[in-house]
Amino acid sequence: MDTVKVALVGFGTIGIGVAKILLGQQERIAGAVGRNVKLVRICDKDTQRDRGVKLPAEMLTDDLNVILNDSEIFTAIELVGGIEPARSIILSLLKSGKNVVTANKALLATHGGEIFDAARSYNRSISFEAAVGGGIPVVNAISTALQANALCQLQAIVNGTCNFILTQMEERGTDYATAVAEAQRLGYAEANPAMDVNGTDTVQKLAILAHLGFGAKPNWQDVPRTGIDTVEAIDIVYAKRLGYRIKLLAVAEATPDGVELYVSPTLVRIDTPVANVRDSFNIIRIVGDAVGDVLLQGRGAGELPTASAIVGDVIDTILGRAKITFDTLNLWKKERPATKIKNPAEICGKNYLRFLVEDRPGVLAEIAGILGRHKISIASVLQQQDNESNNSPAVLIIMTHVSREGDTLAAIDTIDSLVCVRGKTVRMRVE
Amino acid sequence: MDTVKVALVGFGTIGIGVAKILLGQQERIAGAVGRNVKLVRICDKDTQRDRGVKLPAEMLTDDLNVILNDSEIFTAIELVGGIEPARSIILSLLKSGKNVVTANKALLATHGGEIFDAARSYNRSISFEAAVGGGIPVVNAISTALQANALCQLQAIVNGTCNFILTQMEERGTDYATAVAEAQRLGYAEANPAMDVNGTDTVQKLAILAHLGFGAKPNWQDVPRTGIDTVEAIDIVYAKRLGYRIKLLAVAEATPDGVELYVSPTLVRIDTPVANVRDSFNIIRIVGDAVGDVLLQGRGAGELPTASAIVGDVIDTILGRAKITFDTLNLWKKERPATKIKNPAEICGKNYLRFLVEDRPGVLAEIAGILGRHKISIASVLQQQDNESNNSPAVLIIMTHVSREGDTLAAIDTIDSLVCVRGKTVRMRVE
Repeated sequence: MDTVKVALVGFGTIGIGVAKILLGQQERIAGAVGRNVKLVRICDKDTQRDRGVKLPAEMLTDDLNVILNDSEIFTAIELVGGIEPARSIILSLLKSGKNVVTANKALLATHGGEIFDAARSYNRSISFEAAVGGGIPVVNAISTALQANALCQLQAIVNGTCNFILTQMEERGTDYATAVAEAQRLGYAEANPAMDVNGTDTVQKLAILAHLGFGAKPNWQDVPRTGIDTVEAIDIVYAKRLGYRIKLLAVAEATPDGVELYVSPTLVRIDTPVANVRDSFNIIRIVGDAVGDVLLQGRGAGELPTASAIVGDVIDTILGRAKITFDTLNLWKKERPATKIKNPAEICGKNYLRFLVEDRPGVLAEIAGILGRHKISIASVLQQQDNESNNSPAVLIIMTHVSREGDTLAAIDTIDSLVCVRGKTVRMRVE
Repeated sequence: MDTVKVALVGFGTIGIGVAKILLGQQERIAGAVGRNVKLVRICDKDTQRDRGVKLPAEMLTDDLNVILNDSEIFTAIELVGGIEPARSIILSLLKSGKNVVTANKALLATHGGEIFDAARSYNRSISFEAAVGGGIPVVNAISTALQANALCQLQAIVNGTCNFILTQMEERGTDYATAVAEAQRLGYAEANPAMDVNGTDTVQKLAILAHLGFGAKPNWQDVPRTGIDTVEAIDIVYAKRLGYRIKLLAVAEATPDGVELYVSPTLVRIDTPVANVRDSFNIIRIVGDAVGDVLLQGRGAGELPTASAIVGDVIDTILGRAKITFDTLNLWKKERPATKIKNPAEICGKNYLRFLVEDRPGVLAEIAGILGRHKISIASVLQQQDNESNNSPAVLIIMTHVSREGDTLAAIDTIDSLVCVRGKTVRMRVE
């Protein structure tokens, strides 16, 4: 049996998982590939920290050139994350003749065109199963097994941190800040959880899925995005009373006016599979025109689940399947016409609105009037005072019937400028 | 763009779906393959029946030789089903140089070795995504994306007919016969539903998954199998009261003593994803040592969902990915050592037992005594008389703690021979 050499750049949590599998399961991987797969180099700027993985001497280096100059390495894994230096590293790996496996959703969502064009120009492949949904084989499913379908809809929970926080809030009745602190204590959330809770991570993954499944090339910054940082305990309670759970959803839907895209906390019917995905689990619901509903569920993050996807891609790359898929799909290719993206203002849907208002006569009439003038009709209302004092503001929750996004945002703008309204209106979508 | 020719053998429900996609979505398929994919021949013994698909002249034939002798056809789809003539057809397709795509679980489970060896000897490939779970890409996931994992466990609902019947019984409170009739009326069950309800279909799919995921080569006839034809309304009601739903599960589990395999109606905790799969949907829960839990859910049958998997395999075959996977996995290869299968008598688990007994003093003591002598301890008991008359038999339900399968079966045998016991004991597993 001959041997193929693999290198790893970026020795953080996922990198440690990859090293554990490649070094610890050599026999199994050789069985799956038909060749010995040898991890020969790991590059990281920190060569000192003890990561709890026993490495052969000289495997760990802080000099990328050691990998670039080894012409026997055909497969390299980029796990640095973020834009730079990850972008430059991938470009130099490709230039030096390596096929690349990456988990870098920020880079793909931002510079997919550049790095995929580079891979094409060097006749190499890029694989990225781990960029979306961790260990869940969703990229593979859309890229291969579901290719007979035109996708109609995609609905996904792809941020485990947010789902953990929302689950804590619902099941333990804690407020947002307490749930975030618990997520940090358990290692589900970083010290600065902004990229997770403000929806950035989710929208970058949606941009990748929207390209892969619908041929759209969204600029992720332009996709409407609301995070979970505005969700409060009362939202969870009220949603539950109406038969819903709140989930941070990434949605893509094919419509005659283009692909609808958005990320928003969303009230999802409690008896659906998506509503029942708990803790840090992820789910991707795909609706294809032939296959109907397909749901893929699993751990969207973590050392070994994500490493499972990375090593799967390494195997695919060595076997040559990854190159076939890469050459066939023409992802992020300049010449490939992009599917139109629907004007976000034209997206229609039901909404959940929470206002903090002065508790005096006429306030509800004023707000309802503004909604009416924007052609938004009301499905249900709940008004509740925060405490007994007469001057304290009241919480007003309105569920709307289907309305145009443009009208909804204009109405919220007008309402937020009213004297009787305190703070900013919280808006979530309703499935 | 050049053209590749494809042929179809067997023009029933799934064949019609395949023809609809290949003939109706030519542009999309060409986009996914980079070549025009042309369905040139369909072979079926019935060339007269109107199937509602408009076919070009001369496409439909009852002569397989037309396909065998066309040396420009490299990919053929077998949808005849069953053992013969499907087996002979696949062997002659391979011999004449065609790669084969099939949905035939009965054939794979029974003659996998023969047809895979034939494909290897002719240097061709066989793909079979549609054989398990219809449109759900489970074969693909295990064969490619999850290859970094050793599978620990697999738990599956892979028969939509049974799941529909059980859902009807639970949600409408109907008895078994009424639910079967409803499934037949809606086209979910055939006129003779025996292969579905007695678990044969499920156990054949389990045999395929057990080989694919665990390297076992079970003879499907030897795998312990109980169907749903013994489930009665009272079982559903009592299970629900204890927090369970009854699902027909296929289970494979890696243990130090070999792979545990069985098919049985099983009491599954009501708050798990598997318990919440309704109607004709299927689910496959895979537990890998790296990825943890992965759940794949979707339509396990039906014209277009199954055709989605078939056409996905056709695309994989034309692109050459199928051949790489086929050559790498060495499925059903004689020389490949099979993983040991655990002696069914040694499988341990909790059980749900329902007895029909004479309603007289001492009966419970007698049955409990037999269970005790077989080292089976009792977790809970329910005794209920069918009607008010003193002489009518009573239903006795016992939930056991964990016991050895061999002991359980021996105890049931002894109990069934008691004078005070009417009919055969109904046994289900408890998750």
